[in-house]
Amino acid sequence: MSDKVRIALDAMGGDHGPAVTIAGAELALTLHPGSEFVLFGNSSLIAPLLDARPELKAVSRLVHTEIAVRMEDKPSQALRYGRWKSSMWLAIDAVKKGDADMVVSGGNTGALMAMSKFHLKMLPGIDRPAIAALWPTVRGESIVLDVGASIGADANHLIDLAVMGSATARILFGIDRPTVGLLNIGVEEVKGLEEVREAGRILREGSFPDFDYQGFVEGDDIGRGKVDVVVTEGFAGNIALKTAEGTARQIGQYLRAAMTRSLSARIGYLFARSAFQQFRERVDPRRANGGVFLGLNGIVIKSHGGADAEGYAAAIEVGHGVVRDQLLAKIRTALGRPGRPQAGSSQVLASKVAGGAAL
Amino acid sequence: MSDKVRIALDAMGGDHGPAVTIAGAELALTLHPGSEFVLFGNSSLIAPLLDARPELKAVSRLVHTEIAVRMEDKPSQALRYGRWKSSMWLAIDAVKKGDADMVVSGGNTGALMAMSKFHLKMLPGIDRPAIAALWPTVRGESIVLDVGASIGADANHLIDLAVMGSATARILFGIDRPTVGLLNIGVEEVKGLEEVREAGRILREGSFPDFDYQGFVEGDDIGRGKVDVVVTEGFAGNIALKTAEGTARQIGQYLRAAMTRSLSARIGYLFARSAFQQFRERVDPRRANGGVFLGLNGIVIKSHGGADAEGYAAAIEVGHGVVRDQLLAKIRTALGRPGRPQAGSSQVLASKVAGGAAL
Repeated sequence: MSDKVRIALDAMGGDHGPAVTIAGAELALTLHPGSEFVLFGNSSLIAPLLDARPELKAVSRLVHTEIAVRMEDKPSQALRYGRWKSSMWLAIDAVKKGDADMVVSGGNTGALMAMSKFHLKMLPGIDRPAIAALWPTVRGESIVLDVGASIGADANHLIDLAVMGSATARILFGIDRPTVGLLNIGVEEVKGLEEVREAGRILREGSFPDFDYQGFVEGDDIGRGKVDVVVTEGFAGNIALKTAEGTARQIGQYLRAAMTRSLSARIGYLFARSAFQQFRERVDPRRANGGVFLGLNGIVIKSHGGADAEGYAAAIEVGHGVVRDQLLAKIRTALGRPGRPQAGSSQVLASKVAGGAAL
Repeated sequence: MSDKVRIALDAMGGDHGPAVTIAGAELALTLHPGSEFVLFGNSSLIAPLLDARPELKAVSRLVHTEIAVRMEDKPSQALRYGRWKSSMWLAIDAVKKGDADMVVSGGNTGALMAMSKFHLKMLPGIDRPAIAALWPTVRGESIVLDVGASIGADANHLIDLAVMGSATARILFGIDRPTVGLLNIGVEEVKGLEEVREAGRILREGSFPDFDYQGFVEGDDIGRGKVDVVVTEGFAGNIALKTAEGTARQIGQYLRAAMTRSLSARIGYLFARSAFQQFRERVDPRRANGGVFLGLNGIVIKSHGGADAEGYAAAIEVGHGVVRDQLLAKIRTALGRPGRPQAGSSQVLASKVAGGAAL
């Protein structure tokens, strides 16, 4: 790693393509003037955007590619036509070759995951990648993982998530020994999926010096900030994340409607305008943009496909923290500690019951 | 069923016991003066509360019982000490005997489910009960089920949920042919759990005259009101519900903090107070209290354990709609239609893969 942070951008990724990624890179550069960019994508679209931004252009290298991964394709399709030559693949390849410290993409999540896994490979002992999301809470921020990289998780994978998630929290939040909770339905020991209960048992009885296991948490504990790291399998985690985003949007709509309904409400709005502005910034989902792919042998940051330039810059910002504090090295160390049960040991032969016991 | 709606209350259920259940019954009676109540619980606690409410007392019968099911017990424990004699069991028994049209309880969810299943039995062809929640949306309300009655669901159970949920939507919302969506992560056909995809295939290809299947929906589509009925397995459904409640509470806290931060914000608040009041009522989780247990041979309504009197009255109100419109009879009819695949048919031999394919 050089002194400067070098960022590979899949400039074609996301719903809005280069218009957002290049404007986002410009914003990110103002926050970290020491950055360098390698931009992969169609140069006829990107070059004019760079010409309009001389400061960004001065620290960027543009690599032309004809092929962009489509948002709606299956990962296997994307691998077929996009391997070796798409903007997404080449951005990942820059990390693989050591030409960049991280890759940022707002493109097809499944394809990004599949290409990253295929090309960068997994960390030793980790089978499947995870996406960690930054979740705003009333106490600050928490990390929730996995929010959709893979479906289903045995107890061993849940423990890997706890290890990787707490290493991320240590870095991004500067906490020595983050608290960790397992997402479940009901806090009683009796409830929940077999694999979640088994993971809870191992975390409770094992010795994990890098984090402080606090037991089960429920959906409403996430926003409360009850723990620094919420561990869950990717299906439930993705549904929780999207549901929270949807609820925030829904309440925003209610509030706008309420504030325009009467004259006195409109007057009140004028007086309280700056308070509303602060409130909006606080619940702005763009602030929490940037999912970190964990478990890979390289740093991959996923921006929301629908993000605007500010959201995209926030995703790059997350990557800066991760690179600066050497997340990968710290996760490798944490994974090597004796507390973590080794895959295949009888202790973690998690049951794979799907239609588990009711109640 | 007599002309009057007869309501059996587990008066000891919930975090606050009779103080809330009796006050809630009083509120519910003002909405439906034709109601009659049978109250089960400790008469030394309940009788004084009734004496203070002569109108409620006039339409109530109080049945003394020493035993109340504890909130923290396992269902099996509750069945052991509470069968035949707890307030919860006796309230369910009143429905079983035909002495009441519905039972309402704010008590231990698992115990209520186990006792109801044990005593009332399931509807023909239904293996496991489900809890349907009313979910406020920007378009009105939707029904989301299952929100925690059982964990895991094969394709057949998901289709039963669609059938029962749409029958409930028809009644509670007065819609002829409700729209139905399957909760999934990502709208592309390629994503999601094997059993969700299989259910999607059956719903797409089959003929279901009672509802209109719209495909997969994501977590943020729930609050959008994209469909009238959101079908999901109970683990993910419970996490979605709790996460939405937590997010609403979190945003409320942000807003209160913003509105007291400066003098002008406080002045603005004064002008907009009635708008804020309307807004608060709209996002008040009490309004949506009252989960309907579906699949049972009797009407069981679950109130939140932490509900206050207004919330408890809202749960009773949900029961009124269900009783008045003969939900059970309509579900029986819908379940008997030819469109629904029969359990055990090869078409619905859903895969039970838990650690399903990634991506």
